[in-house]
Amino acid sequence: MNRTHNNGELRITDVNKIVELKGWVAKKRNLGGLIFIDIRDKFGITQIAVKPDNANYEVANQLKNEYVIQVKGKVIERESKNKDLPTGDIEIDCIELKILNTSIQPPIIIADNTDALEDTRLKYRYLDLRRPCMQKFFITKSKITQAIREYMISQDFLELETPILAKSTPEGARDYLVPSRLYEGEFYALPQSPQIFKQLYMIAGFEKYFQIARCFRDEDLRADRQPEFTQIDVETSFLNAEEIQTIIEGMFKHVFKKILNVDLKTPFRRISYEDSMDTYGSDKPDLRFGMVLFDCANLFNHIEFMAGGAIKGIKVENANSYTRKNLDELTNLAKKYKAKGLAYLRYQNNELSGSIMKFLDEAKQKEIISQLNLKEGDLILITYGKLKIVQISLGALRSFIAKKEGLLDPNRFEFAWIVDWPVFEWSEEDNRWYASTHPFTAPKDECLQYMKTNPEKCYANAYDIVLNGYELGSGSLRIYNQDVQKLMFETLGLTDEDIKNKFGFFTEALKYGTPPHGGIGMGLERITMIMTNTDNIKDVVAFPKTQSARDLMCESPSSVEEKQLIDVHIDVRKS
Amino acid sequence: MNRTHNNGELRITDVNKIVELKGWVAKKRNLGGLIFIDIRDKFGITQIAVKPDNANYEVANQLKNEYVIQVKGKVIERESKNKDLPTGDIEIDCIELKILNTSIQPPIIIADNTDALEDTRLKYRYLDLRRPCMQKFFITKSKITQAIREYMISQDFLELETPILAKSTPEGARDYLVPSRLYEGEFYALPQSPQIFKQLYMIAGFEKYFQIARCFRDEDLRADRQPEFTQIDVETSFLNAEEIQTIIEGMFKHVFKKILNVDLKTPFRRISYEDSMDTYGSDKPDLRFGMVLFDCANLFNHIEFMAGGAIKGIKVENANSYTRKNLDELTNLAKKYKAKGLAYLRYQNNELSGSIMKFLDEAKQKEIISQLNLKEGDLILITYGKLKIVQISLGALRSFIAKKEGLLDPNRFEFAWIVDWPVFEWSEEDNRWYASTHPFTAPKDECLQYMKTNPEKCYANAYDIVLNGYELGSGSLRIYNQDVQKLMFETLGLTDEDIKNKFGFFTEALKYGTPPHGGIGMGLERITMIMTNTDNIKDVVAFPKTQSARDLMCESPSSVEEKQLIDVHIDVRKS
Repeated sequence: MNRTHNNGELRITDVNKIVELKGWVAKKRNLGGLIFIDIRDKFGITQIAVKPDNANYEVANQLKNEYVIQVKGKVIERESKNKDLPTGDIEIDCIELKILNTSIQPPIIIADNTDALEDTRLKYRYLDLRRPCMQKFFITKSKITQAIREYMISQDFLELETPILAKSTPEGARDYLVPSRLYEGEFYALPQSPQIFKQLYMIAGFEKYFQIARCFRDEDLRADRQPEFTQIDVETSFLNAEEIQTIIEGMFKHVFKKILNVDLKTPFRRISYEDSMDTYGSDKPDLRFGMVLFDCANLFNHIEFMAGGAIKGIKVENANSYTRKNLDELTNLAKKYKAKGLAYLRYQNNELSGSIMKFLDEAKQKEIISQLNLKEGDLILITYGKLKIVQISLGALRSFIAKKEGLLDPNRFEFAWIVDWPVFEWSEEDNRWYASTHPFTAPKDECLQYMKTNPEKCYANAYDIVLNGYELGSGSLRIYNQDVQKLMFETLGLTDEDIKNKFGFFTEALKYGTPPHGGIGMGLERITMIMTNTDNIKDVVAFPKTQSARDLMCESPSSVEEKQLIDVHIDVRKS
Repeated sequence: MNRTHNNGELRITDVNKIVELKGWVAKKRNLGGLIFIDIRDKFGITQIAVKPDNANYEVANQLKNEYVIQVKGKVIERESKNKDLPTGDIEIDCIELKILNTSIQPPIIIADNTDALEDTRLKYRYLDLRRPCMQKFFITKSKITQAIREYMISQDFLELETPILAKSTPEGARDYLVPSRLYEGEFYALPQSPQIFKQLYMIAGFEKYFQIARCFRDEDLRADRQPEFTQIDVETSFLNAEEIQTIIEGMFKHVFKKILNVDLKTPFRRISYEDSMDTYGSDKPDLRFGMVLFDCANLFNHIEFMAGGAIKGIKVENANSYTRKNLDELTNLAKKYKAKGLAYLRYQNNELSGSIMKFLDEAKQKEIISQLNLKEGDLILITYGKLKIVQISLGALRSFIAKKEGLLDPNRFEFAWIVDWPVFEWSEEDNRWYASTHPFTAPKDECLQYMKTNPEKCYANAYDIVLNGYELGSGSLRIYNQDVQKLMFETLGLTDEDIKNKFGFFTEALKYGTPPHGGIGMGLERITMIMTNTDNIKDVVAFPKTQSARDLMCESPSSVEEKQLIDVHIDVRKS
């Protein structure tokens, strides 16, 4: 018996048809002898009716939730229609009913609303994924992926594979290692990204590469990270940064139109890294709302404890309802981002009040009200000290308040390119320079002179794409000159020995006519999360790991047989 | 300066256009002052002409092979046209010439014909991949992949991801292990295939899954194997084997039409495993030629050393030129496949001759000529003994001779489904039963009764797809009943403890309304090899490993820092 229809498609126009359905028992009700069964598949739910005199009544009576059944029957009009269900005008008068498989009582409710704990959902992930809301996440993710492919291929890109069994080059995040069986004491590593391989594709002349590529990082996980994730990986030869950005804008335009029927306006805004930090206190600004940072050093640098560094503020409008407790909360948040403190001023009934009033004489107050253009209900939040800390702490307050005030419309999509990034970042902790992204990012030509002497003056043709406060991806033009690449490695403190061992083959490759090239890598999960309006990455990874990198369903990682360890020449270290 | 055209597209109709090109110097010739440069990119080659009075003459003179250049110039008609080149009617009169990057002398010739050793090609893979013939392999592979996706998506399949950091379940091939940092002494494993996860997708109700999935096997490599490879992985619910096969036939029809413009006839032939062995001596028969096996026990079982088992033969036509040396070669081949010996008979000038003539009286000879319908020049090759060995050795002879005789037309594509496979295989070596494919293959209902007592009588709803003597993929209906799954594991000798540790979560999952399901996994590299007519898997893997699982370019695997080993709680074993 074959299925004639899925469980989401029968309508009143199908009345009198003989149909055959398959699926899971979502609900069974026995109404004084008459049995109603909701049969569910990924397309929807259809109601089956079995009358007491029906030959299948006994079978129907045995059914429990999540039994797999097949049903043959006649489509009839329902007496009491269900307007919440696309198939709610009809039901199936049962002719044949067969149980394909049974089910014991599931530990979680198979419906959009579930009260199951996350650990239970992860352990029984195959049941959790039966819930219609979960199915939608993965259906959408699959469609996003294909829309990306469609577009990239339409732009003459080739999808090309790169190895998963790669080489360990521990710069940045920690590698996952794979011990080799044939070479005692040697290891493969899972790639943190296909960076080097995609650049080699450019050196090999492929010109336009993309890949929906799995990447791996053995890092302590945050809520929005997974040990393995999927990157939309792109690399091109002979194009400049604007041209690469235009391709990616076209990709998002296509994807948002196709999946959400949203028309994105292109080109996206370009904001320099320094401007973004200065205006939004973030390198991934949420542009759905204002509340921009302003400089107010001239108003407050007479106050001793605020003076000597940057002084900046943001203005919260209609903030009369903010209590002392709210302000304490904001102060704690600012301090979490290392601000020395949070000064605030409120403007109510034409009067200023707040934490620094005793330092403000009447003239100063007037100057503040005028310069900051204060209106009834305005609240000014001010941080001071080191510029970067002032920016970041205000940026955090800005985001926190926007969320609290409901300014984050999930149906608005404000893209931007953050451009002109510093090439290097100084680590106080390690007392050395690190690459802001990775050591293949090309410094701008005019900055090359500073590489050795003033790394902080080096800016790159690097560009992040941001959306609604999230970084979607990070790209740059790459170094294609072997001498610049060597200079870069040296600035990062790599010895000749290090360079040879880790990147020898790559610096060698650069010698053979490497074309100018650049690209970008973007997080598929992040994009899917925003497009499906969830903030839990586990909603878009079908079989995720917990925050401690465990698969609760498979119970992995797990111990293995001694023989397996012997085969690959390793031993568990005694701790 | 931006490119206006690629290097493969300019034609006589473009004459007088001012164009801008980028690419690599493929060749430079200095003809008495006039310099000709061939500029190459992945699209083709265009000739640049630089006259002695040209302002760019000095730059042109500096050029060496594989320099990256950009050229602006006017398209002019060539004096002596090159018919071998699509752009051979024109050349570019140089206006501007700029060197984008230099190159040292490449260690291999960048052209279709190269005399470089494979090790050199692999070490400088980025140069090897610049060769036009290599580019074509990967362009085709990329197109095949996308054609597969197009078709599967058109059939309502979702492409869904499965984890690479999975669990070790060592049944069959050896797992690659990944030590865990957070769980001392525990390991992830790279998946040998997404088998369990795709079945869990079915249990989760996704119904139609596919994935172009990376798989990993730590096995000793044969010429056509790589440690990581790509599988076209498919799984469906509620369909029977024929329905699944029909979908896959549609897929190949689409792919072959799109890539090779070849119309495949569907449905493909179905041949049972036993028939295939009996007729072709192979479970992956090459159907482009006949030379089928025939039974001839009645003709020869009076000969003592041949009697007591199967006696089968094949007929080679027009074999008069076969020498004694040829026949010795065939005998050695038969023996390699464990045949006790090879008997042969030739029919020349209306007379039989050969190795067993002394056992054949005149009546017997007549019987042979008549029953085998012998014609001038026929050669009969006969093996005898254990049925399976008789079949396999003749199958090997059949393939060998077909290749030698040039019967293997690379432009013919003879697909077939080999169906009804035995569930189990007996291992003499280990004195136990193994699963012929994997332990999730469903025995046919009527065979369930034999599971415990007569495993050799169990056949499965399993199907391999074969093409021109290669196995492209292997599929089956799966076990969806938990008791059958348990019985299967027990037959394979797994203890309750084993089952619980390795597959506990999976047998648990089967309890919650598992739908009937089945699928297939097919090798993308194998398909690409046949479609691009190469027999070297390294031609279709961009960055392959050697037969000893080494990446000669990256020099991986490699030793790692002690700290990395400490982090993941392992030590290299002292040997």
